Amino acid sequence: MTEHLTIQQMAERIAAKESILLVCHKNPDGDTIGSASALCHALRSLGKQCAVLCSDDIPAMYGYMQTPLFRGEFTPALIVAVDVASVQLFGEKNNVPTIVNRIDCCIDHHAGNLGYANFTLLDATAAATAEIMIEVIEALGAALTPCIADCLYTALSTDTGCFKFASTTARTYRTAAALYEAGARIEDLNILLFQTKSKPRMEVERIALSHLSYHLGGRCALVFLTRDQIANSGVQAAELEDLTSLPIGIAGVQVGLTLRQQPSGSYRISIRTVKGVDACAIAKRLGGGGHNRAAGCELEGDLENTKYAILGEVEAVLALQTAEAAQATEEN
Amino acid sequence: MTEHLTIQQMAERIAAKESILLVCHKNPDGDTIGSASALCHALRSLGKQCAVLCSDDIPAMYGYMQTPLFRGEFTPALIVAVDVASVQLFGEKNNVPTIVNRIDCCIDHHAGNLGYANFTLLDATAAATAEIMIEVIEALGAALTPCIADCLYTALSTDTGCFKFASTTARTYRTAAALYEAGARIEDLNILLFQTKSKPRMEVERIALSHLSYHLGGRCALVFLTRDQIANSGVQAAELEDLTSLPIGIAGVQVGLTLRQQPSGSYRISIRTVKGVDACAIAKRLGGGGHNRAAGCELEGDLENTKYAILGEVEAVLALQTAEAAQATEEN
Repeated sequence: MTEHLTIQQMAERIAAKESILLVCHKNPDGDTIGSASALCHALRSLGKQCAVLCSDDIPAMYGYMQTPLFRGEFTPALIVAVDVASVQLFGEKNNVPTIVNRIDCCIDHHAGNLGYANFTLLDATAAATAEIMIEVIEALGAALTPCIADCLYTALSTDTGCFKFASTTARTYRTAAALYEAGARIEDLNILLFQTKSKPRMEVERIALSHLSYHLGGRCALVFLTRDQIANSGVQAAELEDLTSLPIGIAGVQVGLTLRQQPSGSYRISIRTVKGVDACAIAKRLGGGGHNRAAGCELEGDLENTKYAILGEVEAVLALQTAEAAQATEEN
Repeated sequence: MTEHLTIQQMAERIAAKESILLVCHKNPDGDTIGSASALCHALRSLGKQCAVLCSDDIPAMYGYMQTPLFRGEFTPALIVAVDVASVQLFGEKNNVPTIVNRIDCCIDHHAGNLGYANFTLLDATAAATAEIMIEVIEALGAALTPCIADCLYTALSTDTGCFKFASTTARTYRTAAALYEAGARIEDLNILLFQTKSKPRMEVERIALSHLSYHLGGRCALVFLTRDQIANSGVQAAELEDLTSLPIGIAGVQVGLTLRQQPSGSYRISIRTVKGVDACAIAKRLGGGGHNRAAGCELEGDLENTKYAILGEVEAVLALQTAEAAQATEEN
């Protein structure tokens, strides 16, 4: 059982130690790297020994955060997980299982956090761990430098799709205002993070769009990429994630499908839906799972069979939903 | 000569009249419609007679703002221009030149506002007129209803590219926080405004991407659309505007070119550049103009000649810039 701490209590627990290791989740995103880097810079400014450990490499585009990586140069008196919902997400590389032999503290915003740390600061109302971290840094008495503001802005903006996602709240905007005033380079970061795609990424978008097809009277849009197309483009796997927002971003489309062939030959299917259509229900019929508006499954078989299978389930779920809506109207 | 007013003074001047006509600029965008609609709803809630006039139709997607359009039902005691930088921008349609026989007041955020109104409330530090309008509505003593919050959020978010553009400041975020708390439907509006493209819009994006070509060692990217492609897709002209951000949004590209053939057959060229490359200098060499990072020109001739001409000027400006940078390095 974990003990839940307030911001002040977490800050005091961290302040009491002189050597602190911060641990990110694997396949690191802007929030885990940005929030950990911000806390690391803040603790170093207070004279602490501090470094960041991650199972996977920090993507090169995040180099400006100057994340101080752990090189085994000290034995941490305190280990703090940042933005990590479960122990499975620590990963296996970079000696993580050996170094992270215990988790003293965890700072996180995921509602599903499993409470694996001895002490947890969890706020599931935060749109990003950055919203919590800015308060921890203030409670520690560290200055919000432009570099720390850059780290926290990266964390906040990437986890909210630059303030577009439903998780965005008044607190998100107020945090951004504080980071702007602390000197975050909002203009440059927005171009880097949200307005730039690599040439290989643009090439797979061209290919995916060339395959765009509509089904079920325009209520479903589908794009696909074969493993050869992915491999030949030279695109990074992480760059493909937001491609899944392309088909659902078309007016009138209720279900957007993105099919990516895996190295094994099977097709990984990402299902995105509008409000009122259950993506998870579609995925579950094919052995997958996920959330209400974003789910996925993986199917063996060639492209035509895969399309046939997924479109059949989409049709069934849309028909069910139409029938339910009709019944609800009748009853009212 | 216009007299500049404070927010309080403008609110008092408006509050003193019982029938007020609000005028938007032609080719209306989210800021002019949203800010005018918000003020109109606020004034009606205070018992005033108020309506909105625009030379062009309000795009159907903005229908949720329930803009009360002027139908000649009253003779306005006060005419207020909202987000209109110059009289040329009022437009000629919908009887605007007859009805707008004088401009008593203007509320605007454009630095280039020409001061054509008798009284002007101008704040060029505001990222959108909405940032000023929320304060005017508060000064009037009107309640910030969810509907008014929707109007102002639309105005604020569309004029800043959902908080991505360089004009975004701490005040922009704080205004968004206030609108969130007033009940703006941020989630639904963000999907409608920023995450949805029409099927014709997606079709022209597919065509444009299929034409994507790189030049000058990858420093320049170019897409084009012929008039037949535009006409056959059924896309609205306004939907094509943000296509110009596509080529400049590719990593390593310093000049992004979007060529759209006009009904006359000539090519309209939109030039977008990264910081440090002068888009206007390129446009001027071909008789066009614009801003530092966004400019344009129009060329007669077929596609190949047009490409040849514009790429020649891009090469010249990039070479000049490289030479200047080298000289600056030498001198330091």
